[in-house]
Amino acid sequence: MRRHTRVKDLLNSTNTLHEVNAKGWVRTFRNNQFIALNDGSTIHNIQCVVDFENTPEETLKRITTGAAVSVTGDLVESKGAGQKYEIQVRKLEILGDSDAEKFPMQPKKHSLEFLRENAHLRVRTNAFGAIMRVRSVLAFAVHHYFQQKGFVYVNTPIITGADAEGAGEMFQVTALPLDNLPKNEEGNIDYKKDFFGQHTNLTVSGQLEGETFAMALGQIYTFGPTFRAENSNTSRHLAEFWMIEPEVAFNNLDDNMDLAEDFIQYVIKYAMDHCADDLKFLEGRLLEEEKSKPQAERSEMALLEKLNFVLENNFKRVSYTEAIDILRDCTPNKKKKFQYLINEWGADLQSEHERYLVEKHFKSPVILFDYPANIKAFYMRLNEDGKTVRAMDILFPGIGEIVGGSQREERFDVLVEKMKALGIDEEELWWYLDTRKFGSAVHSGFGLGFERLVLFVTGMTNIRDVIAFPRTPQNADF
Amino acid sequence: MRRHTRVKDLLNSTNTLHEVNAKGWVRTFRNNQFIALNDGSTIHNIQCVVDFENTPEETLKRITTGAAVSVTGDLVESKGAGQKYEIQVRKLEILGDSDAEKFPMQPKKHSLEFLRENAHLRVRTNAFGAIMRVRSVLAFAVHHYFQQKGFVYVNTPIITGADAEGAGEMFQVTALPLDNLPKNEEGNIDYKKDFFGQHTNLTVSGQLEGETFAMALGQIYTFGPTFRAENSNTSRHLAEFWMIEPEVAFNNLDDNMDLAEDFIQYVIKYAMDHCADDLKFLEGRLLEEEKSKPQAERSEMALLEKLNFVLENNFKRVSYTEAIDILRDCTPNKKKKFQYLINEWGADLQSEHERYLVEKHFKSPVILFDYPANIKAFYMRLNEDGKTVRAMDILFPGIGEIVGGSQREERFDVLVEKMKALGIDEEELWWYLDTRKFGSAVHSGFGLGFERLVLFVTGMTNIRDVIAFPRTPQNADF
Repeated sequence: MRRHTRVKDLLNSTNTLHEVNAKGWVRTFRNNQFIALNDGSTIHNIQCVVDFENTPEETLKRITTGAAVSVTGDLVESKGAGQKYEIQVRKLEILGDSDAEKFPMQPKKHSLEFLRENAHLRVRTNAFGAIMRVRSVLAFAVHHYFQQKGFVYVNTPIITGADAEGAGEMFQVTALPLDNLPKNEEGNIDYKKDFFGQHTNLTVSGQLEGETFAMALGQIYTFGPTFRAENSNTSRHLAEFWMIEPEVAFNNLDDNMDLAEDFIQYVIKYAMDHCADDLKFLEGRLLEEEKSKPQAERSEMALLEKLNFVLENNFKRVSYTEAIDILRDCTPNKKKKFQYLINEWGADLQSEHERYLVEKHFKSPVILFDYPANIKAFYMRLNEDGKTVRAMDILFPGIGEIVGGSQREERFDVLVEKMKALGIDEEELWWYLDTRKFGSAVHSGFGLGFERLVLFVTGMTNIRDVIAFPRTPQNADF
Repeated sequence: MRRHTRVKDLLNSTNTLHEVNAKGWVRTFRNNQFIALNDGSTIHNIQCVVDFENTPEETLKRITTGAAVSVTGDLVESKGAGQKYEIQVRKLEILGDSDAEKFPMQPKKHSLEFLRENAHLRVRTNAFGAIMRVRSVLAFAVHHYFQQKGFVYVNTPIITGADAEGAGEMFQVTALPLDNLPKNEEGNIDYKKDFFGQHTNLTVSGQLEGETFAMALGQIYTFGPTFRAENSNTSRHLAEFWMIEPEVAFNNLDDNMDLAEDFIQYVIKYAMDHCADDLKFLEGRLLEEEKSKPQAERSEMALLEKLNFVLENNFKRVSYTEAIDILRDCTPNKKKKFQYLINEWGADLQSEHERYLVEKHFKSPVILFDYPANIKAFYMRLNEDGKTVRAMDILFPGIGEIVGGSQREERFDVLVEKMKALGIDEEELWWYLDTRKFGSAVHSGFGLGFERLVLFVTGMTNIRDVIAFPRTPQNADF
């Protein structure tokens, strides 16, 4: 038999067609006659009209939600509302049954928690099908953006012996038998006997390795999984998440901000252009979800309006010092509504402060820059004032920090001094220091948490709902 | 100052230009006058002509191999051979020095082993710059191929509690303190106290999770890191490598072979179209390398010829049974030249056999299919003969197995029986079995080891040379 045609292509057909074949899963079956068939190619189902008078009762009974079927017939103009075409079924074949009593994805509303427990099946729902398609298109947009600009995609290592960056708690990787660990003469675990001959962890960031490549290839980006063993059971944290880390030789912090802003706007635009149907559905889903919330907690803008807003407005660039001034004088601070009150310059900003700046004060994405040196990482470029570093964080409404980046400290002596002060082992980062020894130059980069981007674009509120199989404390199922 | 222009864009300029700025690293500096400047955007250097009579001696001394410099001047037609344009330098700035005595990447031939030990700097050589650019473009081609066909990119989990697939030895992931492991009442390690509340490993394949998504979205692919804790110190194995795994609902094994062949040809063509300069350089490198080999061991075709050959010829499709007949009767088998002699049907094929079929007998990529069930994985579709499964391996000259795939066993009862026979825990794979319970259908997929593809396209011979920072036994540096 010739190949089947995707539902998306059938629905987008410019004319009726004789003898088409579609394969997919039954979403609903109405009146013993109308199958809503979905094959994952689009959020839309195709209506397949079964000739119930000439179809055995036994077969009709097997057309249940979740069943896989093959339908053959003509693509004709639909008399029903809501679709241009439908299939007049001439031949119907049940490929795989689905016991209506047992199939968990019934055509009704399920809680997101229930769906998470069925992550292998939730993608058969409208919402999760849409989310996963949007996520996929966003991932492609990331590659497309960088490749067209001549960036080189680099796969930095996942397993690493370098654990000096200190970006967060790390997972250990080992091939040693945990119930029979080899010991050395001092009675310590003998990692020389481990697979890599040393203690190894899962990466928290590919930045340091990425920098070495940027100092050769000019413009690079990574896009891979990163890991944090932090016991944060929040709606914004995953133990395993995908991160995008561009790094560009000769870029200063302003260039870095320009790149990040242009990049984010590009990928959002790309998703809007390529996932219009899915985003429209997700906008409706969000409106529905928010109906149960008090008015004050609902979004001020609908999903597409919010995305358009980000495209059409420049991100507000604000120095940390300005931000502290704004926060110190703002009403929630004066009325002691913040959990952490802002009293003086040097305070680390909490989520509540970031949200105030973005959602209440500026009502726009914000780029904060020039943070105090002592609340930021060792590799950030020290400003001439001697107390701030060329760091930037991009804050998004509803999401908080979506990007963290900096101009890197390119001066060997300054970098070594900083490492010494923080007790970071120079020996271990000999290769990183080499970039400052041989042809060092100004360079900058940032990290964007991919799931936070997907969260923003899809309008979902829990990060566990925008990755296929979320890894969180106490959960590594599937 | 306005931004610098990439070397690639300067060399591709269609006319001379007044006042350009280039930034990059000095590859060589000849006659106190000619800088060969590279910025990683292309394999080619741009010649920068320094006005040495009007440049301080002190500055000229600092123009050393590896130094980062900024040059400003006019882009003029070059009088020298080998380049169309050069920069007449008006202003030269040393951005970062490079001590000529200490910089490891001298402009001379280094051993590949030495370069591996300096993986953070080897990318500043012509060969590794080219390899990493080709790798990046191949990665993009992978995404481009699948996205334009409507496949959904899925990030299957890296850390997994499921270890039932048995595709190879796994690395364990833990956040427990190894020197103070918690024990349960039976005196065993209490994984309930670990981060995920269970024993977890690094994934060896995203296939099983991918299948659950294919049975909802129709066509999906993964592209992410996978891990094998196998102590194989060979030129073809890495402990951490990137794998591409498409999975397609309603595809049978023939469709699967068509997809794999079309896909491989597409990405190779894409690299040839987009990396012509780099591949030309790598072809020359390979020819040079092979000069030291005896004639019999040299490639029969030059690199580009070999790539074209793969594009222009269909992969030879041969059943396992046919292959055994060929091997049993071939000269090396009869003359006992094989290490493992082929005597009867059912033997597992070794690398020597695969190479004979591909390189000597068919002289073309080969797809072997319908393997004996007992040498293949549990999830492969049993043929009607009851003894072979719908498996396929694609074998490439010089590389061996580049793709392994199969039509999956879609029948619940047959699958469960097979799992029972192999002692695979049904409880643990409940979610995988759900795909066969609810709307099961014929489906197929394959896995392609990305580094093997890069190896083939770049003509390199050791897999450690086509990934940024290779992970192998006793090596997790950087």
